[in-house]
Amino acid sequence: MSGGNFFEDFRLGQVFEHAPSRKLTEGDAAVYKAIYGSLFESETLDQLLVFHTVFGMSVGDVSLNAVANLGYAECRFLQPVLPGTRLRAVSQVIGLKENSDRKTGIVYVRTRGFADGAVEALTFARWVMVRKRNESAPAPETVVPELARAVAAPHAPGGCESFAVGQKIDHVDGTTIAEAEHAMATRLFNNTARVHFNQYTESKGRFGKRLVYGGHVISIARALSFNGLEGTDLEAINGGRHAAPVFAGDTIFAWSEVLDVQGAALRLRTRATKDLPCDAFPETDGVVLDLDYWAVLRR
Amino acid sequence: MSGGNFFEDFRLGQVFEHAPSRKLTEGDAAVYKAIYGSLFESETLDQLLVFHTVFGMSVGDVSLNAVANLGYAECRFLQPVLPGTRLRAVSQVIGLKENSDRKTGIVYVRTRGFADGAVEALTFARWVMVRKRNESAPAPETVVPELARAVAAPHAPGGCESFAVGQKIDHVDGTTIAEAEHAMATRLFNNTARVHFNQYTESKGRFGKRLVYGGHVISIARALSFNGLEGTDLEAINGGRHAAPVFAGDTIFAWSEVLDVQGAALRLRTRATKDLPCDAFPETDGVVLDLDYWAVLRR
Amino acid sequence: MSGGNFFEDFRLGQVFEHAPSRKLTEGDAAVYKAIYGSLFESETLDQLLVFHTVFGMSVGDVSLNAVANLGYAECRFLQPVLPGTRLRAVSQVIGLKENSDRKTGIVYVRTRGFADGAVEALTFARWVMVRKRNESAPAPETVVPELARAVAAPHAPGGCESFAVGQKIDHVDGTTIAEAEHAMATRLFNNTARVHFNQYTESKGRFGKRLVYGGHVISIARALSFNGLEGTDLEAINGGRHAAPVFAGDTIFAWSEVLDVQGAALRLRTRATKDLPCDAFPETDGVVLDLDYWAVLRR
Repeated sequence: MSGGNFFEDFRLGQVFEHAPSRKLTEGDAAVYKAIYGSLFESETLDQLLVFHTVFGMSVGDVSLNAVANLGYAECRFLQPVLPGTRLRAVSQVIGLKENSDRKTGIVYVRTRGFADGAVEALTFARWVMVRKRNESAPAPETVVPELARAVAAPHAPGGCESFAVGQKIDHVDGTTIAEAEHAMATRLFNNTARVHFNQYTESKGRFGKRLVYGGHVISIARALSFNGLEGTDLEAINGGRHAAPVFAGDTIFAWSEVLDVQGAALRLRTRATKDLPCDAFPETDGVVLDLDYWAVLRR
Repeated sequence: MSGGNFFEDFRLGQVFEHAPSRKLTEGDAAVYKAIYGSLFESETLDQLLVFHTVFGMSVGDVSLNAVANLGYAECRFLQPVLPGTRLRAVSQVIGLKENSDRKTGIVYVRTRGFADGAVEALTFARWVMVRKRNESAPAPETVVPELARAVAAPHAPGGCESFAVGQKIDHVDGTTIAEAEHAMATRLFNNTARVHFNQYTESKGRFGKRLVYGGHVISIARALSFNGLEGTDLEAINGGRHAAPVFAGDTIFAWSEVLDVQGAALRLRTRATKDLPCDAFPETDGVVLDLDYWAVLRR
Repeated sequence: MSGGNFFEDFRLGQVFEHAPSRKLTEGDAAVYKAIYGSLFESETLDQLLVFHTVFGMSVGDVSLNAVANLGYAECRFLQPVLPGTRLRAVSQVIGLKENSDRKTGIVYVRTRGFADGAVEALTFARWVMVRKRNESAPAPETVVPELARAVAAPHAPGGCESFAVGQKIDHVDGTTIAEAEHAMATRLFNNTARVHFNQYTESKGRFGKRLVYGGHVISIARALSFNGLEGTDLEAINGGRHAAPVFAGDTIFAWSEVLDVQGAALRLRTRATKDLPCDAFPETDGVVLDLDYWAVLRR
């Protein structure tokens, strides 16, 4: 995996069996707890711990040479994952599109996480902008996959009397990111993307400092959202976009808007900001994350 | 829990069943170990991990709007807690006293931690100064509970030949607090008090920076005290007082005085300082914590 | 253990049964993972977690007053250690040599780690320069043990077709050390050496800041080496030398040279640098660690 794949190394339909696999334990759950402090309560592993781990396992093959993580879609948590489960991850290239500057291209993959080898626990699509090794390498045929704008509402009988479409919820609190916290989380997830760990090289790079893994902000935002969304379980992620880079020292705030209510299922749009409290529900200013997901209100 | 309770929201006798509960595992024990490095050896969970977790669970209901944690008393560890135990916490308001400025009041609670739902594992009283939401809200009847100055000596046959009343022990070493360490610990404990996590807001606040959870200093002081108190188990806390605020970057030192010896039980008064070694046994200068507790010398 | 042993306290043949013992769990494995991010995959505990823990347990008796850790030799991992194992450590003094300045001396010990009390899981020799308490204390008879320059090659049928003697491998990535990370790791290992934890005292000391535990750099270097050495298991350490002190903020890089190939066993020399990428394979400049070890290529 030494140098990772460049844009011209990917082929439509190509399958990566990501190595190594990763067993998640109660120990990993405790480290996750210490880093994010999520109060959402469960005997199973936090869905986002599973998501980040499957994502992280795919980084070595898919996005080691990524310029940017452009988005996620169609993320569904298919089975709860218990402590002690070994996760295996597989990705398939489902789209390719060279950019007009011929220096980079967009790679679309569908990544699946399997629990103890066989049970599909998680699936999601993502697309990343990846550098070419050689600008003169020929462009592949352009294939852009059709991805649903939203996953179907989870079947959840009952209702959400305390939530209404259009409702806005300020999650109030803020969490400041320490360098050790995001680096420890990102390593916990088997994510080897260089920009998160190496201050020496990054000090000479694009931002002059280490970049925080985008998923770190997702987990912080979800943990903050307990204040207002207590009693909900994350069921699916319709889409996510990292609107601006985040660095150690930034303080993350979040607010959510109810996009839809179907029985006991809530479609939520959570925006996270940096260094900007969310009592005025900022839509673009200061926004670093825009996440669209389904949660279900627990009975 | 969005905004937490203010002084006028509390009623004498009121009971809070704190949610969510919290299962403590070997993973939590490992994170606790990495943060404090306590060498006190046990197959059961560290008593202070249990204490901080039950305390932390109570913060959302009791002290989210606290100006200050004023003290603890009558803290007894009733049952050892094994990894894998789910803790539930319940608090009852046992006293109320409005302050003369009418802006704040003191709330006294007794908090109990139950292991796997039924067995009482821990009990303690604490009192906190809480802000009023509305300064014109009427004052409640003043009730100040009588709290014992010390828990009865644990029954511990045997003796403590190497300890004598009046003896002073310098624990020698110092531990510097990193921002990531206290924040991770405090999240591990389910403690959601805002002052510990949000640099953006606190930079504009009272201290200009994040405050370290007082319990963090208790755990550091107890871990330091292994050097001099090896072989002792913590049995009960008679009282504790945080004499000055502590921040990341501070180095904590500690020393202990033997207040009483009853069989194999030692009553100890541990003082922790910041940025001041304890070879001269400082009684007030630099002192940040004054803790009075019972330990038992293990056979 | 209050003040630790000084050079004149050691006697040839003296045996230390280090206390306390330490049970390593899946929780410790998770914290180790979060701090180092090693991708080497195993159901057993990482050999270096076991090494550091046995080493750490010996610090209180052997090296609390060490000026420098001079070297390791003859380190063999004799049995895999599973999560849940309690480790006990024993050291014997195998050599003593006072330095000509009469202020310090070299103590050679062989340290053994036993799993669940009986099974020898790990053995290694190390030598440290230790201060004298009293410069006029008489010098002991000089005994310098003969230590093998290399452990015998592990028996490993098969071959290493992709590796050749003399081959140099740049491990490419860099890891920046945060203060919280090295302190948490070192506490996880039961290592109580003061220089790692106490910024107040160290700010007035030799380096003006806290020193990073040398073993922290070993673990970072090994984790970095997955990029190029994936599929190998660490079997034995022939020797190790810390060439320069390391501090928080330093970024560690690493490269390896293949010294020998015996069947599927590889003898490797890994050098780690600080703030210097290893694409030019630096032999001395910037080098902080020089480690000679045997790994076996997994089938």
